[in-house]
Amino acid sequence: MSPWHAARPGDPLSAIDTPALILDLHAFERNLERMAAALRGRNVRLRAHAKSHKCPQIALRQVALGAGGICCQKVSEAAVFVDAGIKDILVTNEVMGDVKLRHLVALARTARMGVLVDHPQQVQALATAAQAHAVTLDVYVEINVGANRCGVAPGEAAVQLARQIVAHPPLRFAGLQCYHGPAQHLRAPQDRAAAIGSAVEAARMTRQAIEACGIAVECITGAGTGSFVHERDSGVFNEIQAGSYIFMDRDYGDNQRGEGDIAFEHALFVRTTVMSRTSATHAVVDAGLKASSVDSGMPTVWQRPDLRYLKAADEHGVLSTADAAALALGDPLMLVPGHCDPTVNLYDELVCVRGEQVEALWPIAARGALL
Amino acid sequence: MSPWHAARPGDPLSAIDTPALILDLHAFERNLERMAAALRGRNVRLRAHAKSHKCPQIALRQVALGAGGICCQKVSEAAVFVDAGIKDILVTNEVMGDVKLRHLVALARTARMGVLVDHPQQVQALATAAQAHAVTLDVYVEINVGANRCGVAPGEAAVQLARQIVAHPPLRFAGLQCYHGPAQHLRAPQDRAAAIGSAVEAARMTRQAIEACGIAVECITGAGTGSFVHERDSGVFNEIQAGSYIFMDRDYGDNQRGEGDIAFEHALFVRTTVMSRTSATHAVVDAGLKASSVDSGMPTVWQRPDLRYLKAADEHGVLSTADAAALALGDPLMLVPGHCDPTVNLYDELVCVRGEQVEALWPIAARGALL
Repeated sequence: MSPWHAARPGDPLSAIDTPALILDLHAFERNLERMAAALRGRNVRLRAHAKSHKCPQIALRQVALGAGGICCQKVSEAAVFVDAGIKDILVTNEVMGDVKLRHLVALARTARMGVLVDHPQQVQALATAAQAHAVTLDVYVEINVGANRCGVAPGEAAVQLARQIVAHPPLRFAGLQCYHGPAQHLRAPQDRAAAIGSAVEAARMTRQAIEACGIAVECITGAGTGSFVHERDSGVFNEIQAGSYIFMDRDYGDNQRGEGDIAFEHALFVRTTVMSRTSATHAVVDAGLKASSVDSGMPTVWQRPDLRYLKAADEHGVLSTADAAALALGDPLMLVPGHCDPTVNLYDELVCVRGEQVEALWPIAARGALL
Repeated sequence: MSPWHAARPGDPLSAIDTPALILDLHAFERNLERMAAALRGRNVRLRAHAKSHKCPQIALRQVALGAGGICCQKVSEAAVFVDAGIKDILVTNEVMGDVKLRHLVALARTARMGVLVDHPQQVQALATAAQAHAVTLDVYVEINVGANRCGVAPGEAAVQLARQIVAHPPLRFAGLQCYHGPAQHLRAPQDRAAAIGSAVEAARMTRQAIEACGIAVECITGAGTGSFVHERDSGVFNEIQAGSYIFMDRDYGDNQRGEGDIAFEHALFVRTTVMSRTSATHAVVDAGLKASSVDSGMPTVWQRPDLRYLKAADEHGVLSTADAAALALGDPLMLVPGHCDPTVNLYDELVCVRGEQVEALWPIAARGALL
C-alpha cells in the first residue's frame, strides 16, 4: 500500500498524484440510474456484482437504488460486504474447502448467503457445515449455458442436484445460476442475442424438468453488462448480475451497441503522467500493467485519438505520438482501462471526482480478497 | 484485503486456504546464495530490485547477504523500504511531479536516495527540490541501450545531462543507468549475449565521453535475472539490478540456459484448489487472473506435465486434463506464475513454507505502492 494518498478531498485534479484510479461521479451516478431505469417496473431485479468494484460505498448505493442484494465471487470478498452492512449476498461460485465453508456459514448468521453447486460432494459439504453451525444457506445449481467453465449440463444433472439439495433441510434450493460470461464480450449484437437465446432455452428447459419433480425454481439468475437486456426480456430470468455497467472499460466499449442496448458511460479512469519523452514518436507514462490490467488488451487514452497506448511494462506505458509536439513531459492523461475488474483490484482506493475537484476517497475494501 | 490469513505459522500445507502465494524458503534461500556466490570476489555489487518482491523481510536478507542496497521503481515503494530500515535505494525511474519530488527529498533525509533522469527539466526540478530541503541526491543519467523506452541516446546527450547535474551542487552525478529489459526474455542465450554486448558498448562509449569532460562515472548499473552474467563479466558494469532471481517464474523458466548462466529455482507458487470438475477433459481451479498475472502468459502446473492451464478468467483457471481420473474435486495444485512481479503485487502476504510446514507470513508491504 502506498504510504500516502493520491489526493485529498477538495484537491483540484491537477493535484492528484499518479497513477491514480479515478471515478467520475457524474458518469457513475448516471450509470447507476440507467441500470435502475432499465429494470424498473419489470419482474427482474438487480443483484449487482461486487467483484467489479470491491467497494462497500458502491454496494450500498446500488442497494439504495433498488438492487435486491449483491454477488461476490469469493467468501472473503463477501465477508467485507457483510461487515459493511450488506444483508443479502450470493457467492456466484462453487466453494471448496473446510476453511471457506466455516467462514461462509459464519456469515450466514448475519446475512442471507447464497452459493453455487455443480457436484453432489459440494451439496453434502454445505449441508454438513450449515447443520453444524445451525444456519440456512441458499443453494443454486449452476448449469453450463455455454461458457464451458463450471456448471452441470442443463436438464437431468441439475434435477439430481436440486433433489439432493431439498433433501438436506439446512439448505434451501434457491434456483439456477445461468451465467454466460463469454457472451458479454461478443462484439456483434446479434451474436450476443443468439448466445443468450440458447442460454435462456437451457434455463427454461432445466426449470421445467425440476418443476416436473415438484420442486419450485424461485430464481433464475445470471447475465452481465454486455447482454443483460436479453436476459431481462427473456421471461425466464428474474435476476441480473451485472457489475461492470457502473464503470465500463475499453473492452466493453468495443462491443457494438444493438437496438435496445443501454448506453453506459466510461466512469473509471487511470490518471497518469508523461514521465519520459526522449523520442519524437513515443512517450512513456507512469502507468504500466501494475496500474491498468492488460489481460483484455491495452487501455486507450481518453479523448486523445491522436495517442495510442502501445505496450505496458510493469511500471511503464509506451504511447505512440503521431505529432511530436502533441505531448510534453509532465502532461497528465486519462486512460480507459482494458478491463475494469482486475484494474480496480490493483488499487486501495478510488479517487472520486466531481467536475474539476476531488470529492472523496472510497476504500476498495475487498481488494485482494482472494480466499 | 482478505479479512483472514491464508494460513498460520505451524500449519501443515493441507491447511492453507487458497489461492495463496507460497514462498518455498529452501529454494528461495538457495537462490539468494547462488546470486551472492555469482558476484563474490568480483568488482560488481548487487543492488537487488525490490519491485519483484515488495517485501522488507526479503530486502533485509538481500542486504545481509551482501547487496549494497536495493532498487525501487516508485517513490512510494521506496518509502516503505526506508521505513523498514533500508539505507541505500535507487529509484530506477524518472520521477515527475512536485508531490513525488517532495516525498523523494524527504526520504533523502534518512537514506541515500538515487534517481534517474533523461531530460534537463528533470535535473532542474530535482535540484530545486533538493536545495529547498537541504539534501543531496544521487542522480544517474539513463541511456537507451536497446530497450527503446526511457533514456537518452548514448553519447553526447548523456554528456550534456551529466554536465548539468554536476553544475547543481545538491545533486551528485552517480553514473549511468543502462538497463536492457527486453534482453532478459530473449530465449536463446546467444541472443541475450548479443543484446547485452551492444548495451555494454553503448555504456563504455558514453562513460568515455563523460570522463573526457573530466567528470567521473562512478557507477554503471543495470542488468536483470535473464542477462546479468554478461553485464557482470563486461568489465564496464559494476552494479547488477536483478530482482526475479529470488522467485523465478514461468517466463524466465522458458529461457534456454547458456554456458555460465546460473540455475535459479522456482521458489514462488500459487497454491490453488480444484473447485469444479464437470467435464472429463477440463477442470476449474480457484486461481484466475486476480491470483496469477497473465501479462506474460499462463502459469504452468508444478510437477504435473499431464495438466495444462488453458485460460484464466478473473477468479477461475481452466485446466485441460488428458486423463479424466487425474484430478479430483478439492485437489490442491501448485502453479508457477507466468510473471512473478505483477503476481506478487496481487497479494498482501507471502505464505513462507519450509518442507511440509508453514514457517512464517511475510507482509508484501509495498504491494500497490504505485505513486
